[in-house]
Amino acid sequence: MDDHHLVEVKQTSVEVYRGKFLTAFRDDVGLPDGSRSVREYILHPGAVMVVPLLQDGGGAMRVVLERQYRYPMGRTMLEFPAGKLDVGEPPFDCAQRELQEETGYTANEWARAGVIHPVISYSTEFIEVWFARQLVPGVRHLDAGEFLDVLTAPPSDLMRWSMDGTITDAKTICGVLWLQNMLAGSWSPDWQPVVKR
Amino acid sequence: MDDHHLVEVKQTSVEVYRGKFLTAFRDDVGLPDGSRSVREYILHPGAVMVVPLLQDGGGAMRVVLERQYRYPMGRTMLEFPAGKLDVGEPPFDCAQRELQEETGYTANEWARAGVIHPVISYSTEFIEVWFARQLVPGVRHLDAGEFLDVLTAPPSDLMRWSMDGTITDAKTICGVLWLQNMLAGSWSPDWQPVVKR
Repeated sequence: MDDHHLVEVKQTSVEVYRGKFLTAFRDDVGLPDGSRSVREYILHPGAVMVVPLLQDGGGAMRVVLERQYRYPMGRTMLEFPAGKLDVGEPPFDCAQRELQEETGYTANEWARAGVIHPVISYSTEFIEVWFARQLVPGVRHLDAGEFLDVLTAPPSDLMRWSMDGTITDAKTICGVLWLQNMLAGSWSPDWQPVVKR
Repeated sequence: MDDHHLVEVKQTSVEVYRGKFLTAFRDDVGLPDGSRSVREYILHPGAVMVVPLLQDGGGAMRVVLERQYRYPMGRTMLEFPAGKLDVGEPPFDCAQRELQEETGYTANEWARAGVIHPVISYSTEFIEVWFARQLVPGVRHLDAGEFLDVLTAPPSDLMRWSMDGTITDAKTICGVLWLQNMLAGSWSPDWQPVVKR
């Protein structure tokens, strides 16, 4: 598609804030009609989210969730395990690391669902979404200063919670769309075994 | 639920950046174990997204979408109409305003689907999601410096695009979950007629 009539072109770029976690830029841009404007945004390294699928003793599926206090929200939130990429870290390595660190689980089969962009107007963040199954429980290793509960729920609860306001985290709701379509047979993850290193 | 073991408590709060569009804060917080940490976040006024449902001549449903250049992404994105709340503006007023300004459509029936939080780790942003139907075409009134294309698509395309990477905007994918469940009969919007003012 020809996007010429929509494209904004960088003129100058200035780092306006560099904190402990956030880095912000302010760019002057040229608009399609030749006028100028300003774009401010967070520079983000990218992240992963994992949708962990657990088979209980009877063969029924349960999903692994976390409950974590999210300071900007002022409350705890129910969400899938997720975390930021370390510098130079491939997303799949990050997915395996975050699942293990935060929940203790390792997974023997993984499938990449896709990528989502949570904040297209003011952050460069992307989130790669991975499904994980054949889970093996283990010991979690939270980062210093990290506090979260791990819980499991049947997919039917997860879907109801995504519609009734119990879950409002957008990345998690995106994961629920893939999960719902997987369970309905309209989306098939490309499961791959993990080769142990 | 008792969240005492998860809660972070504000100690001090400093505005570290106030730009044209973004305002950022840096807070010192007390963690559940008594240690201290830092939380940085964008203070956001909140936003709305509209899922506009159009009946074509034959009675088939089409959704109204926008294609807009998103500077932090460096490309155009397919998304539902959305916009930030003006100061003091009720979300439903904002939903009606943004739909009309960006697409020209006014809607005679509206239903509030819910609220999502796109960036729970570093922004206070919420997005109220509204469904709109009984659309009446009109003239759009873009803000100065705003450039976007309006298009329509059948729901089946929208669902496929949300799974295959054509659509990666998280708020739009969340809207697709509600839409899919509405079409499947597992979620019923509470449609309300608009009282003209």
